[in-house]
Amino acid sequence: MDFRVLMQERKTLIDKALDYYLPREEEYPQEIHRAMRYSVFAGGKRIRPLLTLLTAEIFTPEWKRALPAACSLELIHTYSLIHDDLPAMDDDEYRRGRLTSHKVFGEGMAILAGDALLTLAFELLTDNNKGPSEFDSVYWQEVPPQTKLDVIFEIAGAAGVRGMIGGQVVDLASEGKKIDEQTLEYIEVHKTGALFKAAVRTGALLAQADKDSLRRLTVYSSLLGRAFQIVDDLLDVEGSEAKMGKARGADAKKEKATMVSLCGLAEAKSRRDQLYSQSIQELEYYGGKADQLKKITRFLLYRDY
Amino acid sequence: MDFRVLMQERKTLIDKALDYYLPREEEYPQEIHRAMRYSVFAGGKRIRPLLTLLTAEIFTPEWKRALPAACSLELIHTYSLIHDDLPAMDDDEYRRGRLTSHKVFGEGMAILAGDALLTLAFELLTDNNKGPSEFDSVYWQEVPPQTKLDVIFEIAGAAGVRGMIGGQVVDLASEGKKIDEQTLEYIEVHKTGALFKAAVRTGALLAQADKDSLRRLTVYSSLLGRAFQIVDDLLDVEGSEAKMGKARGADAKKEKATMVSLCGLAEAKSRRDQLYSQSIQELEYYGGKADQLKKITRFLLYRDY
Repeated sequence: MDFRVLMQERKTLIDKALDYYLPREEEYPQEIHRAMRYSVFAGGKRIRPLLTLLTAEIFTPEWKRALPAACSLELIHTYSLIHDDLPAMDDDEYRRGRLTSHKVFGEGMAILAGDALLTLAFELLTDNNKGPSEFDSVYWQEVPPQTKLDVIFEIAGAAGVRGMIGGQVVDLASEGKKIDEQTLEYIEVHKTGALFKAAVRTGALLAQADKDSLRRLTVYSSLLGRAFQIVDDLLDVEGSEAKMGKARGADAKKEKATMVSLCGLAEAKSRRDQLYSQSIQELEYYGGKADQLKKITRFLLYRDY
Repeated sequence: MDFRVLMQERKTLIDKALDYYLPREEEYPQEIHRAMRYSVFAGGKRIRPLLTLLTAEIFTPEWKRALPAACSLELIHTYSLIHDDLPAMDDDEYRRGRLTSHKVFGEGMAILAGDALLTLAFELLTDNNKGPSEFDSVYWQEVPPQTKLDVIFEIAGAAGVRGMIGGQVVDLASEGKKIDEQTLEYIEVHKTGALFKAAVRTGALLAQADKDSLRRLTVYSSLLGRAFQIVDDLLDVEGSEAKMGKARGADAKKEKATMVSLCGLAEAKSRRDQLYSQSIQELEYYGGKADQLKKITRFLLYRDY
């Protein structure tokens, strides 16, 4: 199947599943449910859940069982954006061309919406009570309980203080300071890389991949995570403003250290290229079965938005 | 064993376990670990974990297996206090006589410390990798995986938007408004009651209590939760300032609706008494085995701090 068509199909499935897991807007107290949905359906590219599904697809035709975990990662990613945008953090008024959560719902509600999404991420991974549906019990109930626990541990670890939050802490502490390459790498590996790694490993765990594969895909996802962050930095200098829905130059304006500001544009691109070919190398073992994962890797690292 | 001595012993055990689960202060990035520990070790009474342990103790001498879940609830309670105290929420500078997290570490770090504690609560419930210790694998590894998943579901549900966060949302939305008794009850049942109920039910689940017991203890904990909130309101009018470590009258100052302001002091006390005897009634079935749980119920509802 054509890559773009497949991506669109998977993305539609992820969006439907997210809609299914999130509380209805009509439900009391409505304000928080509106806030949760506002940010989850704000035009995200669903990169993390796509990585989970495409990784599982290498190993099993029953990749849909990875859908709850894929969505859990997207909820966690969304909560982190809401909290990152707060005045006490990055203080951003716009994201993807729309007002940020605290600008629409107020700071208190934005904090609570983030808290709620993080909590829901774990609730949905342990929910066996819902009726049969395309999005949960049919597939999720087949997953052995210990595998579910392994997945929750993977996700909680990646989201926590030794993962994403750790990166955010160092990022926050570095504001307005000159930082060295080592600190920058810590931020990138943790703030972005940890969730990428968890996305890929979660797909592998749910497909019952063996230890060798887990090791291989851990390497792949670490390389991808680092390259992805460099591309993010490149886009802030060179990206398409129309497609990104935001102005370039935000990092420079905030005097934020990035791989580009530390090493220059050419060096950053060369590192991106190198990380790309190293990451693809790890997937060669799976031959054609990893074709879609290779394609999304290329797409993520050579996009212009 | 004397009730106060037993409480102190259990509390010491809970504190040791919390210390074990939390990242060391020396670990990089230190600031967030300091912030997490500052709030967890701020003199909390450990009510929720005590309820979990004492409930498990009705059913099994192996009640220590409930320790990770008990601590998980305390981490979630602590995160909720940190976020509640933020300027965008209740805007409190002091709690238990000490500066609140954002006053010491700044708003951004306080938000992240809360996020980190919430995430850690789920990480520790799925962690099988740690070496043998009094606080985890010896007991926790004996728990069947599906029971662990049930416990996580219970806790996530209680902490989420249909539980604690829902209560906080309505509380935030009611600020400065006249609210009716129904809304006040919604806030109390959700903001405080949900975690109390989860604490008790979690202890029962981990002790493999049967459905009848779960039903009975659900009723007990709902009654306790409601009474506890009334006592909190009473203390704000009548409590010992020295013992509470804070001034009375905070609710009145914030024009916060409470059971006392809505119904008067006498009626609030009479409701507390009624809820107390109803809750104890539910424990009679267990005879002497529930003695300690009865005693903590009495202690919680007739304290002066």
